Amino acid sequence: MNAQTLSVDQKTMNQTGLPEAVNDRLSLYYPFLKDWETIGYKTVTCENIGSDLHLEPSRVMEDLESIGIISSPRIGYVLCNVIYELELFFGWNKVNQGIIVGAGSIGSALLGYGKFEQCGLKIVAAFDLDESKIGGCIHGKAVYPLEKLVEFVQLGDIDIGVVAVPATEAQIVADLLVEGGIRAIWNFSPVHLEVPESTIVQNQDLYCSLATLSKKLKASTESVP
Amino acid sequence: MNAQTLSVDQKTMNQTGLPEAVNDRLSLYYPFLKDWETIGYKTVTCENIGSDLHLEPSRVMEDLESIGIISSPRIGYVLCNVIYELELFFGWNKVNQGIIVGAGSIGSALLGYGKFEQCGLKIVAAFDLDESKIGGCIHGKAVYPLEKLVEFVQLGDIDIGVVAVPATEAQIVADLLVEGGIRAIWNFSPVHLEVPESTIVQNQDLYCSLATLSKKLKASTESVP
Repeated sequence: MNAQTLSVDQKTMNQTGLPEAVNDRLSLYYPFLKDWETIGYKTVTCENIGSDLHLEPSRVMEDLESIGIISSPRIGYVLCNVIYELELFFGWNKVNQGIIVGAGSIGSALLGYGKFEQCGLKIVAAFDLDESKIGGCIHGKAVYPLEKLVEFVQLGDIDIGVVAVPATEAQIVADLLVEGGIRAIWNFSPVHLEVPESTIVQNQDLYCSLATLSKKLKASTESVP
Repeated sequence: MNAQTLSVDQKTMNQTGLPEAVNDRLSLYYPFLKDWETIGYKTVTCENIGSDLHLEPSRVMEDLESIGIISSPRIGYVLCNVIYELELFFGWNKVNQGIIVGAGSIGSALLGYGKFEQCGLKIVAAFDLDESKIGGCIHGKAVYPLEKLVEFVQLGDIDIGVVAVPATEAQIVADLLVEGGIRAIWNFSPVHLEVPESTIVQNQDLYCSLATLSKKLKASTESVP
Protein backbone atom coordinates (compact mmCIF):
# COMPACT_ATOMS: atom_id res chain seq x y z
CA MET A 1 0.00 0.00 0.00
CA ASN A 2 1.21 3.43 -0.91
CA ALA A 3 1.87 5.37 2.28
CA GLN A 4 2.14 8.72 0.54
CA THR A 5 1.50 11.89 2.50
CA LEU A 6 -1.57 13.71 1.29
CA SER A 7 -1.35 17.30 0.16
CA VAL A 8 -4.12 19.78 0.95
CA ASP A 9 -5.32 19.49 -2.66
CA GLN A 10 -5.59 15.73 -2.43
CA LYS A 11 -7.43 15.98 0.89
CA THR A 12 -10.04 18.23 -0.67
CA MET A 13 -10.74 15.85 -3.57
CA ASN A 14 -14.30 14.61 -3.76
CA GLN A 15 -15.59 11.10 -3.17
CA THR A 16 -15.05 9.78 -6.67
CA GLY A 17 -11.51 11.14 -6.88
CA LEU A 18 -9.92 10.02 -3.61
CA PRO A 19 -6.16 9.41 -3.62
CA GLU A 20 -5.36 5.76 -4.22
CA ALA A 21 -3.68 5.39 -0.81
CA VAL A 22 -6.87 6.54 0.96
CA ASN A 23 -8.93 4.20 -1.21
CA ASP A 24 -6.60 1.30 -0.36
CA ARG A 25 -6.69 2.00 3.37
CA LEU A 26 -10.49 2.34 3.39
CA SER A 27 -10.75 -1.07 1.71
CA LEU A 28 -8.56 -2.53 4.48
CA TYR A 29 -10.65 -1.11 7.33
CA TYR A 30 -13.63 -3.11 6.14
CA PRO A 31 -12.47 -6.71 6.93
CA PHE A 32 -11.33 -5.60 10.38
CA LEU A 33 -14.67 -3.92 11.06
CA LYS A 34 -16.48 -7.08 9.91
CA ASP A 35 -14.31 -9.12 12.32
CA TRP A 36 -15.22 -6.75 15.16
CA GLU A 37 -18.89 -7.09 14.29
CA THR A 38 -18.56 -10.90 14.38
CA ILE A 39 -16.95 -10.72 17.83
CA GLY A 40 -19.97 -8.76 19.02
CA TYR A 41 -18.71 -5.17 19.36
CA LYS A 42 -21.21 -2.38 18.66
CA THR A 43 -18.78 0.56 18.45
CA VAL A 44 -15.20 1.10 17.33
CA THR A 45 -12.66 3.93 17.69
CA CYS A 46 -10.00 5.07 15.26
CA GLU A 47 -7.48 3.92 17.88
CA ASN A 48 -8.88 0.36 17.59
CA ILE A 49 -8.63 0.39 13.80
CA GLY A 50 -5.24 2.09 13.78
CA SER A 51 -3.76 -0.35 16.26
CA ASP A 52 -4.89 -3.34 14.15
CA LEU A 53 -3.50 -1.88 10.94
CA HIS A 54 -0.43 -0.12 12.30
CA LEU A 55 -1.72 3.33 11.37
CA GLU A 56 -1.93 6.60 13.31
CA PRO A 57 -5.49 7.10 14.69
CA SER A 58 -5.49 10.61 13.15
CA ARG A 59 -4.88 9.07 9.70
CA VAL A 60 -7.80 6.66 10.20
CA MET A 61 -10.05 9.53 11.29
CA GLU A 62 -9.05 11.61 8.24
CA ASP A 63 -9.67 8.68 5.86
CA LEU A 64 -13.15 8.03 7.24
CA GLU A 65 -13.97 11.74 7.29
CA SER A 66 -13.03 11.91 3.61
CA ILE A 67 -16.11 9.79 2.81
CA GLY A 68 -18.29 11.56 5.34
CA ILE A 69 -17.99 9.20 8.32
CA ILE A 70 -17.64 11.27 11.51
CA SER A 71 -16.88 9.90 14.99
CA SER A 72 -18.85 10.89 18.08
CA PRO A 73 -16.97 12.11 21.15
CA ARG A 74 -16.30 9.33 23.69
CA ILE A 75 -18.26 6.71 21.64
CA GLY A 76 -16.19 6.63 18.45
CA TYR A 77 -18.06 5.12 15.52
CA VAL A 78 -21.25 3.05 15.59
CA LEU A 79 -19.92 -0.11 13.97
CA CYS A 80 -22.88 -0.98 11.74
CA ASN A 81 -22.96 2.60 10.40
CA VAL A 82 -19.28 2.56 9.37
CA ILE A 83 -19.71 -0.83 7.71
CA TYR A 84 -22.81 0.37 5.87
CA GLU A 85 -21.10 3.58 4.67
CA LEU A 86 -18.04 1.66 3.41
CA GLU A 87 -20.27 -0.82 1.56
CA LEU A 88 -22.08 2.08 -0.02
CA PHE A 89 -18.81 3.81 -0.93
CA PHE A 90 -17.30 0.76 -2.62
CA GLY A 91 -20.56 -0.41 -4.16
CA TRP A 92 -20.42 -3.63 -2.11
CA ASN A 93 -24.08 -3.28 -1.12
CA LYS A 94 -24.82 -4.33 -4.70
CA VAL A 95 -23.34 -7.75 -5.41
CA ASN A 96 -21.85 -7.92 -8.91
CA GLN A 97 -22.05 -11.26 -10.65
CA GLY A 98 -18.80 -12.50 -12.12
CA ILE A 99 -17.40 -15.40 -14.08
CA ILE A 100 -13.83 -16.71 -14.26
CA VAL A 101 -12.28 -17.64 -17.58
CA GLY A 102 -9.45 -20.13 -17.12
CA ALA A 103 -9.84 -22.84 -14.50
CA GLY A 104 -6.12 -23.45 -14.03
CA SER A 105 -4.34 -23.07 -10.71
CA ILE A 106 -4.96 -19.34 -10.24
CA GLY A 107 -8.52 -19.50 -11.61
CA SER A 108 -9.38 -22.44 -9.35
CA ALA A 109 -7.98 -20.65 -6.32
CA LEU A 110 -10.08 -17.59 -7.10
CA LEU A 111 -13.15 -19.83 -7.43
CA GLY A 112 -12.54 -21.01 -3.87
CA TYR A 113 -11.87 -17.59 -2.38
CA GLY A 114 -15.13 -17.05 -0.50
CA LYS A 115 -14.23 -13.58 0.75
CA PHE A 116 -14.80 -11.90 -2.63
CA GLU A 117 -18.52 -12.19 -2.02
CA GLN A 118 -18.13 -9.99 1.07
CA CYS A 119 -16.73 -7.34 -1.28
CA GLY A 120 -19.52 -7.42 -3.81
CA LEU A 121 -18.24 -10.05 -6.24
CA LYS A 122 -20.16 -13.29 -6.59
CA ILE A 123 -18.49 -15.74 -8.96
CA VAL A 124 -21.23 -17.82 -10.55
CA ALA A 125 -19.39 -19.98 -13.10
CA ALA A 126 -16.07 -20.80 -14.76
CA PHE A 127 -15.10 -21.29 -18.42
CA ASP A 128 -12.26 -23.32 -19.88
CA LEU A 129 -11.04 -24.99 -23.06
CA ASP A 130 -9.92 -28.15 -21.27
CA GLU A 131 -12.35 -31.00 -22.05
CA SER A 132 -11.44 -32.76 -18.81
CA LYS A 133 -12.66 -29.78 -16.77
CA ILE A 134 -15.77 -28.88 -18.78
CA GLY A 135 -18.97 -30.26 -17.29
CA GLY A 136 -17.37 -30.61 -13.87
CA CYS A 137 -17.45 -28.41 -10.79
CA ILE A 138 -14.66 -26.50 -8.99
CA HIS A 139 -15.46 -25.27 -5.48
CA GLY A 140 -19.13 -25.77 -6.30
CA LYS A 141 -19.05 -23.70 -9.51
CA ALA A 142 -19.82 -25.31 -12.88
CA VAL A 143 -17.16 -25.22 -15.62
CA TYR A 144 -18.54 -24.43 -19.09
CA PRO A 145 -16.90 -24.57 -22.54
CA LEU A 146 -15.48 -21.30 -23.89
CA GLU A 147 -17.96 -21.25 -26.79
CA LYS A 148 -20.78 -20.63 -24.29
CA LEU A 149 -19.05 -17.53 -22.84
CA VAL A 150 -20.60 -14.76 -24.96
CA GLU A 151 -24.13 -16.08 -24.53
CA PHE A 152 -23.67 -16.63 -20.78
CA VAL A 153 -22.46 -13.07 -20.23
CA GLN A 154 -25.26 -11.65 -22.40
CA LEU A 155 -28.08 -13.57 -20.76
CA GLY A 156 -26.74 -13.90 -17.22
CA ASP A 157 -26.41 -10.24 -16.23
CA ILE A 158 -22.70 -10.74 -15.64
CA ASP A 159 -20.79 -7.57 -14.66
CA ILE A 160 -17.24 -8.77 -14.05
CA GLY A 161 -15.12 -11.19 -16.09
CA VAL A 162 -12.00 -12.54 -14.39
CA VAL A 163 -9.32 -13.40 -16.94
CA ALA A 164 -7.05 -16.16 -15.63
CA VAL A 165 -5.82 -17.69 -18.90
CA PRO A 166 -2.27 -17.81 -20.33
CA ALA A 167 -0.94 -14.66 -22.05
CA THR A 168 -1.50 -16.06 -25.54
CA GLU A 169 -5.25 -16.45 -24.98
CA ALA A 170 -5.97 -13.36 -22.89
CA GLN A 171 -6.88 -10.97 -25.72
CA ILE A 172 -9.15 -13.57 -27.37
CA VAL A 173 -10.99 -14.04 -24.07
CA ALA A 174 -11.23 -10.26 -23.53
CA ASP A 175 -12.76 -9.90 -27.02
CA LEU A 176 -15.39 -12.55 -26.18
CA LEU A 177 -16.21 -10.85 -22.87
CA VAL A 178 -16.60 -7.49 -24.62
CA GLU A 179 -18.79 -9.14 -27.28
CA GLY A 180 -21.01 -10.44 -24.48
CA GLY A 181 -21.27 -6.93 -23.08
CA ILE A 182 -19.13 -7.32 -19.95
CA ARG A 183 -18.69 -4.09 -17.93
CA ALA A 184 -15.42 -4.84 -16.14
CA ILE A 185 -12.44 -7.18 -16.51
CA TRP A 186 -10.19 -8.27 -13.65
CA ASN A 187 -7.09 -9.30 -15.57
CA PHE A 188 -4.66 -11.83 -14.01
CA SER A 189 -2.80 -12.43 -17.30
CA PRO A 190 0.47 -10.64 -18.12
CA VAL A 191 -1.03 -8.85 -21.12
CA HIS A 192 -2.19 -5.31 -21.81
CA LEU A 193 -5.77 -5.90 -22.98
CA GLU A 194 -7.26 -3.84 -25.80
CA VAL A 195 -10.88 -3.09 -24.90
CA PRO A 196 -13.36 -0.30 -25.67
CA GLU A 197 -13.01 2.78 -23.46
CA SER A 198 -16.27 1.98 -21.67
CA THR A 199 -14.94 -1.38 -20.40
CA ILE A 200 -13.14 -1.17 -17.04
CA VAL A 201 -9.91 -3.16 -16.75
CA GLN A 202 -8.19 -3.83 -13.42
CA ASN A 203 -4.79 -5.50 -13.89
CA GLN A 204 -3.47 -7.93 -11.31
CA ASP A 205 -0.29 -9.21 -12.78
CA LEU A 206 1.62 -11.61 -10.51
CA TYR A 207 4.42 -11.67 -13.06
CA CYS A 208 5.11 -7.91 -12.83
CA SER A 209 4.96 -8.07 -9.07
CA LEU A 210 7.47 -10.92 -8.89
CA ALA A 211 9.73 -9.09 -11.35
CA THR A 212 9.72 -6.03 -9.08
CA LEU A 213 10.48 -8.18 -6.05
CA SER A 214 13.36 -9.99 -7.82
CA LYS A 215 14.75 -6.65 -8.98
CA LYS A 216 14.75 -5.22 -5.43
CA LEU A 217 16.34 -8.41 -4.10
CA LYS A 218 19.05 -8.25 -6.75
CA ALA A 219 19.71 -4.55 -5.98
CA SER A 220 19.97 -5.29 -2.25
CA THR A 221 22.42 -8.15 -2.93
CA GLU A 222 24.59 -5.87 -5.06
CA SER A 223 24.64 -3.15 -2.40
CA VAL A 224 26.14 -5.55 0.18
CA PRO A 225 29.91 -4.96 0.20
CA MET B 1 0.26 -1.61 -16.26
CA ASN B 2 0.91 2.09 -16.04
CA ALA B 3 1.12 3.49 -19.57
CA GLN B 4 2.56 6.81 -18.48
CA THR B 5 4.58 8.87 -20.93
CA LEU B 6 8.19 9.19 -19.91
CA SER B 7 9.78 12.58 -19.42
CA VAL B 8 13.36 13.20 -20.50
CA ASP B 9 14.43 13.00 -16.85
CA GLN B 10 12.83 9.62 -16.41
CA LYS B 11 14.42 8.35 -19.60
CA THR B 12 17.85 9.27 -18.34
CA MET B 13 17.43 7.42 -15.05
CA ASN B 14 19.95 4.67 -14.44
CA GLN B 15 19.37 0.93 -14.33
CA THR B 16 18.35 0.69 -10.68
CA GLY B 17 15.96 3.64 -10.93
CA LEU B 18 13.89 2.86 -14.03
CA PRO B 19 10.31 4.14 -14.05
CA GLU B 20 7.87 1.48 -12.88
CA ALA B 21 6.08 1.41 -16.27
CA VAL B 22 9.35 0.55 -18.05
CA ASN B 23 10.13 -2.08 -15.46
CA ASP B 24 6.65 -3.61 -15.88
CA ARG B 25 6.90 -3.67 -19.67
CA LEU B 26 10.38 -5.22 -19.59
CA SER B 27 9.04 -8.00 -17.35
CA LEU B 28 6.31 -8.66 -19.93
CA TYR B 29 8.70 -8.92 -22.88
CA TYR B 30 10.38 -11.88 -21.23
CA PRO B 31 7.61 -14.55 -21.46
CA PHE B 32 7.00 -13.65 -25.10
CA LEU B 33 10.70 -13.92 -25.89
CA LYS B 34 10.81 -17.31 -24.15
CA ASP B 35 7.82 -18.42 -26.26
CA TRP B 36 9.66 -17.30 -29.42
CA GLU B 37 12.73 -19.22 -28.34
CA THR B 38 10.62 -22.35 -27.81
CA ILE B 39 9.14 -22.02 -31.31
CA GLY B 40 12.67 -21.97 -32.68
CA TYR B 41 13.29 -18.35 -33.67
CA LYS B 42 16.84 -17.02 -33.33
CA THR B 43 16.15 -13.29 -33.72
CA VAL B 44 13.33 -10.91 -32.87
CA THR B 45 12.45 -7.32 -33.81
CA CYS B 46 10.77 -4.64 -31.74
CA GLU B 47 7.91 -4.86 -34.24
CA ASN B 48 7.42 -8.55 -33.29
CA ILE B 49 7.39 -7.76 -29.58
CA GLY B 50 5.22 -4.67 -30.01
CA SER B 51 2.66 -6.50 -32.09
CA ASP B 52 2.29 -9.23 -29.46
CA LEU B 53 1.92 -6.77 -26.60
CA HIS B 54 0.02 -4.00 -28.41
CA LEU B 55 2.85 -1.50 -27.99
CA GLU B 56 4.52 0.87 -30.43
CA PRO B 57 7.81 -0.63 -31.72
CA SER B 58 9.57 2.63 -30.80
CA ARG B 59 8.43 2.21 -27.19
CA VAL B 60 9.81 -1.36 -27.12
CA MET B 61 13.12 -0.15 -28.58
CA GLU B 62 13.39 2.62 -25.99
CA ASP B 63 12.63 0.23 -23.12
CA LEU B 64 15.29 -2.25 -24.23
CA GLU B 65 17.79 0.55 -24.84
CA SER B 66 17.21 1.75 -21.29
CA ILE B 67 18.91 -1.40 -20.01
CA GLY B 68 21.57 -1.37 -22.69
CA ILE B 69 20.04 -3.76 -25.25
CA ILE B 70 20.60 -2.35 -28.75
CA SER B 71 19.13 -3.74 -31.97
CA SER B 72 21.19 -4.38 -35.11
CA PRO B 73 20.01 -2.94 -38.43
CA ARG B 74 17.99 -5.44 -40.48
CA ILE B 75 18.52 -8.28 -37.91
CA GLY B 76 16.81 -6.83 -34.88
CA TYR B 77 17.84 -8.52 -31.64
CA VAL B 78 19.63 -11.84 -31.21
CA LEU B 79 17.00 -13.65 -29.16
CA CYS B 80 19.27 -15.44 -26.68
CA ASN B 81 21.12 -12.18 -25.97
CA VAL B 82 17.92 -10.26 -25.11
CA ILE B 83 16.74 -13.11 -22.88
CA TYR B 84 20.11 -13.25 -21.13
CA GLU B 85 20.20 -9.48 -20.57
CA LEU B 86 16.67 -9.44 -19.16
CA GLU B 87 17.49 -12.33 -16.82
CA LEU B 88 20.55 -10.43 -15.67
CA PHE B 89 18.56 -7.22 -15.21
CA PHE B 90 15.83 -8.85 -13.10
CA GLY B 91 18.18 -11.15 -11.25
CA TRP B 92 16.42 -14.21 -12.72
CA ASN B 93 19.73 -15.83 -13.61
CA LYS B 94 20.04 -16.52 -9.89
CA VAL B 95 17.12 -18.64 -8.69
CA ASN B 96 15.88 -17.50 -5.28
CA GLN B 97 14.50 -20.18 -3.01
CA GLY B 98 11.13 -19.41 -1.50
CA ILE B 99 8.57 -20.88 0.86
CA ILE B 100 4.83 -20.24 1.09
CA VAL B 101 3.16 -19.75 4.44
CA GLY B 102 -0.52 -20.58 4.29
CA ALA B 103 -1.62 -23.53 2.17
CA GLY B 104 -5.20 -22.30 1.64
CA SER B 105 -6.70 -21.65 -1.78
CA ILE B 106 -4.35 -18.84 -2.82
CA GLY B 107 -1.27 -20.49 -1.28
CA SER B 108 -2.05 -23.80 -3.00
CA ALA B 109 -2.52 -22.08 -6.35
CA LEU B 110 0.83 -20.34 -5.99
CA LEU B 111 2.43 -23.71 -5.15
CA GLY B 112 1.18 -25.02 -8.48
CA TYR B 113 2.19 -22.01 -10.53
CA GLY B 114 5.20 -23.42 -12.36
CA LYS B 115 6.07 -20.22 -14.19
CA PHE B 116 7.51 -18.51 -11.13
CA GLU B 117 10.59 -20.68 -11.50
CA GLN B 118 11.19 -19.10 -14.92
CA CYS B 119 11.34 -15.74 -13.10
CA GLY B 120 13.86 -16.74 -10.50
CA LEU B 121 11.58 -18.00 -7.71
CA LYS B 122 11.69 -21.65 -6.75
CA ILE B 123 9.13 -22.54 -4.10
CA VAL B 124 10.58 -25.41 -2.06
CA ALA B 125 8.02 -25.93 0.71
CA ALA B 126 4.81 -24.75 2.35
CA PHE B 127 3.89 -24.11 5.97
CA ASP B 128 0.49 -24.22 7.64
CA LEU B 129 -1.24 -24.54 11.00
CA ASP B 130 -3.84 -27.00 9.72
CA GLU B 131 -3.07 -30.50 11.06
CA SER B 132 -4.87 -32.10 8.10
CA LYS B 133 -2.43 -30.46 5.66
CA ILE B 134 0.80 -30.88 7.63
CA GLY B 135 2.84 -33.89 6.53
CA GLY B 136 1.11 -33.93 3.14
CA CYS B 137 2.13 -32.59 -0.25
CA ILE B 138 0.54 -29.90 -2.45
CA HIS B 139 1.68 -29.82 -6.08
CA GLY B 140 4.67 -31.91 -5.03
CA LYS B 141 5.76 -29.55 -2.22
CA ALA B 142 5.79 -30.75 1.39
CA VAL B 143 3.65 -28.93 3.96
CA TYR B 144 5.40 -28.37 7.31
CA PRO B 145 4.05 -27.12 10.66
CA LEU B 146 4.46 -23.41 11.39
CA GLU B 147 6.78 -24.08 14.36
CA LYS B 148 9.43 -25.34 11.91
CA LEU B 149 9.37 -22.09 9.90
CA VAL B 150 12.16 -20.12 11.59
CA GLU B 151 14.58 -23.05 11.54
CA PHE B 152 13.75 -23.91 7.92
CA VAL B 153 14.41 -20.34 6.74
CA GLN B 154 17.63 -20.13 8.76
CA LEU B 155 19.09 -23.44 7.58
CA GLY B 156 17.60 -23.65 4.10
CA ASP B 157 19.05 -20.52 2.51
CA ILE B 158 15.52 -19.22 1.85
CA ASP B 159 15.37 -15.73 0.28
CA ILE B 160 11.66 -15.12 -0.28
CA GLY B 161 8.74 -15.84 2.04
CA VAL B 162 5.29 -15.75 0.45
CA VAL B 163 2.64 -14.76 3.01
CA ALA B 164 -0.75 -16.24 2.06
CA VAL B 165 -2.41 -16.42 5.49
CA PRO B 166 -5.51 -14.55 6.77
CA ALA B 167 -5.07 -10.93 7.89
CA THR B 168 -5.10 -11.81 11.58
CA GLU B 169 -2.03 -14.08 11.24
CA ALA B 170 0.00 -12.12 8.71
CA GLN B 171 2.09 -10.04 11.15
CA ILE B 172 2.86 -13.12 13.30
CA VAL B 173 4.10 -14.95 10.19
CA ALA B 174 6.12 -11.92 9.06
CA ASP B 175 7.79 -11.79 12.51
CA LEU B 176 8.74 -15.47 12.21
CA LEU B 177 10.14 -14.97 8.70
CA VAL B 178 12.20 -11.99 9.89
CA GLU B 179 13.43 -14.04 12.89
CA GLY B 180 14.61 -16.70 10.43
CA GLY B 181 16.49 -14.04 8.47
CA ILE B 182 14.28 -13.82 5.37
CA ARG B 183 15.38 -11.20 2.83
CA ALA B 184 12.09 -10.52 1.06
CA ILE B 185 8.37 -11.02 1.69
CA TRP B 186 5.72 -11.33 -1.05
CA ASN B 187 2.62 -10.38 0.88
CA PHE B 188 -0.79 -11.62 -0.33
CA SER B 189 -2.56 -10.68 2.92
CA PRO B 190 -4.49 -7.40 3.29
CA VAL B 191 -2.18 -6.12 6.03
CA HIS B 192 0.58 -3.55 6.17
CA LEU B 193 3.47 -5.61 7.57
CA GLU B 194 5.90 -4.12 10.07
CA VAL B 195 9.39 -5.38 9.21
CA PRO B 196 12.95 -4.09 9.60
CA GLU B 197 14.03 -1.62 6.91
CA SER B 198 16.41 -4.19 5.41
CA THR B 199 13.55 -6.64 4.66
CA ILE B 200 11.93 -6.13 1.25
CA VAL B 201 8.12 -6.30 1.14
CA GLN B 202 6.13 -6.58 -2.08
CA ASN B 203 2.39 -6.26 -1.51
CA GLN B 204 -0.04 -8.15 -3.71
CA ASP B 205 -3.39 -7.44 -2.18
CA LEU B 206 -6.32 -8.94 -4.10
CA TYR B 207 -8.67 -7.23 -1.69
CA CYS B 208 -7.47 -3.69 -2.56
CA SER B 209 -7.57 -4.52 -6.24
CA LEU B 210 -11.16 -5.78 -6.07
CA ALA B 211 -12.15 -2.71 -4.04
CA THR B 212 -10.74 -0.45 -6.78
CA LEU B 213 -12.58 -2.43 -9.45
CA SER B 214 -15.90 -2.30 -7.54
CA LYS B 215 -15.45 1.43 -6.99
CA LYS B 216 -14.89 2.07 -10.72
CA LEU B 217 -17.88 -0.11 -11.60
CA LYS B 218 -20.07 1.79 -9.12
CA ALA B 219 -18.88 5.15 -10.50
CA SER B 220 -19.61 4.04 -14.08
CA THR B 221 -23.12 2.90 -13.06
CA GLU B 222 -23.80 6.26 -11.42
CA SER B 223 -22.61 8.15 -14.49
CA VAL B 224 -25.17 6.36 -16.71
CA PRO B 225 -28.18 8.70 -17.06
